[in-house]
Amino acid sequence: MKEYFKVADLKQVLEYTSTFPVVETEVVSLSESVGRVLAEDIFSDIDLPDFSRSTMDGYAVAASSTFGASTGTPAFLMIKGSVAMGAEPGFPIKAGEAARIATGGMLPEGADSVVMIEFSEAIDETAIEVTKSVAPGQHVIEKGEDFEKGKIVLIKGLKIRPQETGLMAAFGVLTVKVYKRPIVGIISTGDEIVPVDEFPPAGHIRDINTHSLSALVKTAGGLPHTFAIVKDDFGSLKSVCEEAFQKADMVLISGGSSVGTRDFTVDALSALPDAAILIHGISISPGKPTILASVGGKAFWGLPGHVVSAMIVYEVVVKKFIRRISGLISEKEESFRQEAVLTRNLASAQGREEFIRVKLYSEDGQNYAEPVLGKSGMINTMIMADGLIRIPLNTEGLEKGALVKVRII
Amino acid sequence: MKEYFKVADLKQVLEYTSTFPVVETEVVSLSESVGRVLAEDIFSDIDLPDFSRSTMDGYAVAASSTFGASTGTPAFLMIKGSVAMGAEPGFPIKAGEAARIATGGMLPEGADSVVMIEFSEAIDETAIEVTKSVAPGQHVIEKGEDFEKGKIVLIKGLKIRPQETGLMAAFGVLTVKVYKRPIVGIISTGDEIVPVDEFPPAGHIRDINTHSLSALVKTAGGLPHTFAIVKDDFGSLKSVCEEAFQKADMVLISGGSSVGTRDFTVDALSALPDAAILIHGISISPGKPTILASVGGKAFWGLPGHVVSAMIVYEVVVKKFIRRISGLISEKEESFRQEAVLTRNLASAQGREEFIRVKLYSEDGQNYAEPVLGKSGMINTMIMADGLIRIPLNTEGLEKGALVKVRII
Repeated sequence: MKEYFKVADLKQVLEYTSTFPVVETEVVSLSESVGRVLAEDIFSDIDLPDFSRSTMDGYAVAASSTFGASTGTPAFLMIKGSVAMGAEPGFPIKAGEAARIATGGMLPEGADSVVMIEFSEAIDETAIEVTKSVAPGQHVIEKGEDFEKGKIVLIKGLKIRPQETGLMAAFGVLTVKVYKRPIVGIISTGDEIVPVDEFPPAGHIRDINTHSLSALVKTAGGLPHTFAIVKDDFGSLKSVCEEAFQKADMVLISGGSSVGTRDFTVDALSALPDAAILIHGISISPGKPTILASVGGKAFWGLPGHVVSAMIVYEVVVKKFIRRISGLISEKEESFRQEAVLTRNLASAQGREEFIRVKLYSEDGQNYAEPVLGKSGMINTMIMADGLIRIPLNTEGLEKGALVKVRII
Repeated sequence: MKEYFKVADLKQVLEYTSTFPVVETEVVSLSESVGRVLAEDIFSDIDLPDFSRSTMDGYAVAASSTFGASTGTPAFLMIKGSVAMGAEPGFPIKAGEAARIATGGMLPEGADSVVMIEFSEAIDETAIEVTKSVAPGQHVIEKGEDFEKGKIVLIKGLKIRPQETGLMAAFGVLTVKVYKRPIVGIISTGDEIVPVDEFPPAGHIRDINTHSLSALVKTAGGLPHTFAIVKDDFGSLKSVCEEAFQKADMVLISGGSSVGTRDFTVDALSALPDAAILIHGISISPGKPTILASVGGKAFWGLPGHVVSAMIVYEVVVKKFIRRISGLISEKEESFRQEAVLTRNLASAQGREEFIRVKLYSEDGQNYAEPVLGKSGMINTMIMADGLIRIPLNTEGLEKGALVKVRII
């Protein structure tokens, strides 16, 4: 049965995100983990630091020994010894005593703070004067102050940034369980499409979408798996979809902007085992003729053939599904936007949410977003653009001077 | 000769960027090119599209045949034939004639526009009525309208995004000359540092910086080359620096926050062939005790040992040098910032530029930046933070409610 009338708004489409399962996990070394999605909670195996640590070069003291000290009335302290880096001091500090210590050194027993070298004066090898009082804990990171032992320090589902690799190093994590990179099948369709290594005969065009979509998938942390170009033919498309189902966690079929191919895509998807057409048309512009099917629990997308439309649908719709199946739980980094002032009025058609390409520039410290207008079959508009702005559903557009949020592309 | 007093502000440091040479180039396949830096200009080998192309399903016509058409007074057109996808039409269109065409189809000679199927009515197999006039060029991308043949379409020095891979595909570019990923040597120093696979004895700490800095280098498109931890010893550091000079395009030495190690780093760098200490101290916080040396034309950095300081110096200083040697010419993407409202007053010390970690959150559509305060030896502040904000040199700080620009980390 053909189901032609499932046109939905973007919100409705995104509600399907959670219906697709997260990929399997794998174990990678710490040094390969950046950019991956954590598939286990990480615990602290020790206090961090595991000892009270100086954050300055100077003298470890009991703060009370310095109370009231000033340039006029310095505190007199006896040097008990020096703390070697990477070693236990081996001696305690009592009232009226101090130990030489460098940044990162371990405080001796009895010391609770560090006098900076700048606020001390050596009298001789055995004694100093301190010209400024310190508070307990000053210039010290106390044992467990950064992280306490035995706690969850990173949670499953977050994207590992450089600082998270550093934290795992601190806790001796040599290998990490992460979600696999989702494999995304990429299928370009159309009788008019030729491979990049062929010179296009009249009426033909080289295959752009396979390359731009693969690069988008890579950028999102997925692994693109590309297929040869498929002609506008039901049998060929169905057969490559079956192969893609075996090999990929999600499939992007682009093309099918023409009446004929649209039919093929829906027909081929419907004919696959355990398939349901969830969405046939999204009220966004560009990108309306987008199809979403669930095939054996995997998302199969029919994207518009126009290169710009395909990229924008990817950016505002598909990417969120890739993030979902990648195991990511936070949408925070996805929501980061550059703000800018719109440089011209933008009218909007009712009944659809519009995504407009913009070029960003700065003038006198103010950011401006200059709309890049042009047909959605023209890739130069994406080359000129730095980002996308959104005109919400059922508004009359945006006025020149409006503050807009730009999604960088 | 020791040169201890080259404390500079950030601007002065960044002026050295262009003194370091760009890395060599290599050739990669189109499918491996995303994220790389283009090392050649790319030309259009054909007009794009190479023929006038329909952007809609409908009828190719001479626009003049539809002038004045409306629902009340439709224009009557004879169907001359159908344009197959990926084929030359093989017949011309004259006044009063139309050809069936699908999106992406090639316009027949004599046709200059496309009537959307929605504004036509079939009378029989041979004739239609058109109920709305079209303008010349409507629903058509003309030959060469996207890009003209023989022009430079992408310039050397830009970072290849997904859309640029798509554009190169359109012009049959199968292999691309790009700049090599710069190899960045990473050296962690300090008697108190142990490798991640060792349990730290008292007074020791596991090596965080090697991992966080390697991940940062990777994220910036570089190739980290790590070295074993170096003890606080002039000879060892000099010797590993010599090795790093052979293997890397830039070197990051972290540690040396203690008085002793600071000496070693400067001494070891000064003792290398063709070495000059360019900067010894930057008026930023955190990150003041940063060293920049030129060693045989390569940048050697002495970064603070504190994990947060090292990451922030990387983020606000070193990264710009990596971009430079990577061959990037645009700073545009580097300038993208999330804007947010500061949630509390921040005082600032005079005489230095401060970088404050912030956590971002949204409330009622407004973004807020909440400062994450804490010592620069504590990695938890970087884990909690989403970005950095800057308090410029010689200001008194920032007030609660100020609009700040957040550099995402």
